[in-house]
Amino acid sequence: MNIDFKTLAEKYQTPYYVYDFDHITKQYEELKSSFRARKSLIAYAVKANSNLSVIKHLADLGAGADCVSIGEVKRALKVGIPSYKIIFSGVGKSDDEITQALELDILMINVESAAELNRVEDIAKNLGKIARISIRVNPNIDPKTHPYISTGLHENKFGVDIDTAKRMYIQCKNSEFLEPTGIHCHIGSQLTQLQPIKDAVKIVAELVKNLKAIKIDLSFMDVGGGLGIIYDNEKLIDTYEYSQSILDAMFGLDVTVVCEPGRFIVGNSGVFVTKVLYEKVNGNKRFVIVDGAMNDLIRPALYNAYHKIEVLNDNKNLSDCNLVGPVCESGDFFAKNIQLPQTNHNDLVAIYSAGAYGFTMASNYNTRGRVAEIAVLNGQDRLIRRRETFEDLIALEEEFIK
Amino acid sequence: MNIDFKTLAEKYQTPYYVYDFDHITKQYEELKSSFRARKSLIAYAVKANSNLSVIKHLADLGAGADCVSIGEVKRALKVGIPSYKIIFSGVGKSDDEITQALELDILMINVESAAELNRVEDIAKNLGKIARISIRVNPNIDPKTHPYISTGLHENKFGVDIDTAKRMYIQCKNSEFLEPTGIHCHIGSQLTQLQPIKDAVKIVAELVKNLKAIKIDLSFMDVGGGLGIIYDNEKLIDTYEYSQSILDAMFGLDVTVVCEPGRFIVGNSGVFVTKVLYEKVNGNKRFVIVDGAMNDLIRPALYNAYHKIEVLNDNKNLSDCNLVGPVCESGDFFAKNIQLPQTNHNDLVAIYSAGAYGFTMASNYNTRGRVAEIAVLNGQDRLIRRRETFEDLIALEEEFIK
Ligand SMILES: Cc1ncc(COP(=O)(O)O)c(C=O)c1O
Ligand SMILES: Cc1ncc(COP(=O)(O)O)c(C=O)c1O
Repeated sequence: MNIDFKTLAEKYQTPYYVYDFDHITKQYEELKSSFRARKSLIAYAVKANSNLSVIKHLADLGAGADCVSIGEVKRALKVGIPSYKIIFSGVGKSDDEITQALELDILMINVESAAELNRVEDIAKNLGKIARISIRVNPNIDPKTHPYISTGLHENKFGVDIDTAKRMYIQCKNSEFLEPTGIHCHIGSQLTQLQPIKDAVKIVAELVKNLKAIKIDLSFMDVGGGLGIIYDNEKLIDTYEYSQSILDAMFGLDVTVVCEPGRFIVGNSGVFVTKVLYEKVNGNKRFVIVDGAMNDLIRPALYNAYHKIEVLNDNKNLSDCNLVGPVCESGDFFAKNIQLPQTNHNDLVAIYSAGAYGFTMASNYNTRGRVAEIAVLNGQDRLIRRRETFEDLIALEEEFIK
Repeated sequence: MNIDFKTLAEKYQTPYYVYDFDHITKQYEELKSSFRARKSLIAYAVKANSNLSVIKHLADLGAGADCVSIGEVKRALKVGIPSYKIIFSGVGKSDDEITQALELDILMINVESAAELNRVEDIAKNLGKIARISIRVNPNIDPKTHPYISTGLHENKFGVDIDTAKRMYIQCKNSEFLEPTGIHCHIGSQLTQLQPIKDAVKIVAELVKNLKAIKIDLSFMDVGGGLGIIYDNEKLIDTYEYSQSILDAMFGLDVTVVCEPGRFIVGNSGVFVTKVLYEKVNGNKRFVIVDGAMNDLIRPALYNAYHKIEVLNDNKNLSDCNLVGPVCESGDFFAKNIQLPQTNHNDLVAIYSAGAYGFTMASNYNTRGRVAEIAVLNGQDRLIRRRETFEDLIALEEEFIK
């Protein structure tokens, strides 16, 4: 990554998120080309980074979109992703969302429960439409990742078991208003081991074959997202091995493979850049206080997530410290017990691997405006979301003061 | 609380936050009157619930404001809290925030480190102003609460130790641009035991006396916030005992006592109301899926916080379940392993004690618009923040699509 954080700080102030769009291209192309010989759709998981310019960049590359709310569907359409490349997933879709998804004629609705299938059927019937259905199967496989982002075990809220799925496909087949179109599984995020994915895909492919035997022909097999990235020194899944093992499991099936990567596409493209306000020592503990906070990047507080951190100065004498923000909670930290150089007021600090689940989870806690987002493409930077002002924050409340 | 959740759901849709403003009045008056005979300022901790109408309601009752960002200061001023009742706290204030705080001439800046005091002095000097200073003392006392909201131990980032504080007050006394005005401590949030507060206040009062002996006369002694509320079946601190023990510790000192309650004022006033989408059973586990999610109320995911939950139907046959939202994370839950009745599509669910650190921490994760906020006063409801639309969510990004 060749981004001049200081110049950007002068131009856009701090804190900010910056995304390397060339890296996004590289990640997309790497995955897409690993499926070269086969029909495939890379449906970017919008939740990871939903900035319109990020999605637009992927749209231009040919990506589809995996969406978990009607808002995400609208984002995808807004930047030109064609409706036939859009999937709507999620365990809880409201009637209104289902209605809109049907009206927008997206590729398929990924259904996660028997009750939901009934809702979709009712709504499709009322609208006089045929709903293309995919069913999310929960293969009951331990993905070996953080419990909050592990989603493939039965005790999770996600998907349905194989038998339920089978019954639901039969319901689709017998319904005038439902069309069995795809199958879906996603076992978790930040996966670094291939075996759980292989196991899951095998189970799903088996089901596709069984359905074929009873004349239910699916067109899409969606193997979910979850490919891990480098935060620290993870050994990653090789994309070629990944795609080959999926294609192996699909042997003999004439279906389009769909992947829904989020983190893999955008995670390592992003850096959160913040500025040192002060240092202080409390008891025996050194604290480096920066102008970014947990409201900007909540992953450390929420998941105890690790991000590589670099102070952008020439100081070489490292010592132990906590890197913290201004928010009035002890949970407001970026790192604890790390070795950082002595810093001065206004030194910049880069927090890496912040492109996924960074800005999208940001809040206005402590009346802190959300930060600017910047794209760098071909060495050129440009703003892709402007920093929130005080006026933005109160805009929806102001008229109601009495 | 006498609020008709169903009528509100029809009028404003779900999910929503509703706040009982009469309860807010009662809480404020209870605390204020417990200090009756003495000079006191109840400076509401805006971070707990920063809706302008909430602050306005407290402003009308005579409250001041404890703020942790210049945005919060502006909120307080916006609704008519006079500048002389506004305190600006926080471990990390930017130069710009300090400048604005001085220009707005608020009561005092609550300084949390020696480095920050130097910044304030420099900035005041440049502006030709005198900065009224309070210093946050870290009394090194265990408040016996959740580690993320415990702030009074040395290993925390908050405040300075007694000796540092003393040196900083002497610096203030000797500076043309600083005026030692107050002292401050805050040991944590959701406190249910009085003893830690007593211990902290005693340490602070001792310092005030020592400073007096060297001719540094402070006018305000700020004992922080932190009074707990009922989430489950907590036994609360009696407000009368609370105020009396503070006044006892201050015996002989002619200072105005300041409290900064947040949760105590608004916590139990608020209810988050959401609607059932579906039920499902995965493995042996029953899930009730609602239209609210972790992006609306993150306390369960972030602190594993308990909220009392009630399904608003007449069903009496309870069984174990998890109450979860539509967000694609296993961390998206409101409660795990609770007994709830069987529910139907569109049944309402009330999640209580959500008035503090609820909406203020909300995000747009999964492109979910933030919900509506409603006030009820004297049996009358009114909107105090309108629900976010898709257009609101993309407003700051749209112009940058290329
Ligand atoms: C169904 C589904 N697909 C795709 C993703 C994207 O995951 P990742 O960003 O790890 O690729 C998620 C993440 O939560 C998901 O729940
Ligand atoms: C300095 C300070 N004052 C007041 C409060 C308000 O606390 P509570 O809502 O528990 O009263 C906080 C909470 O974090 C705080 O940090």
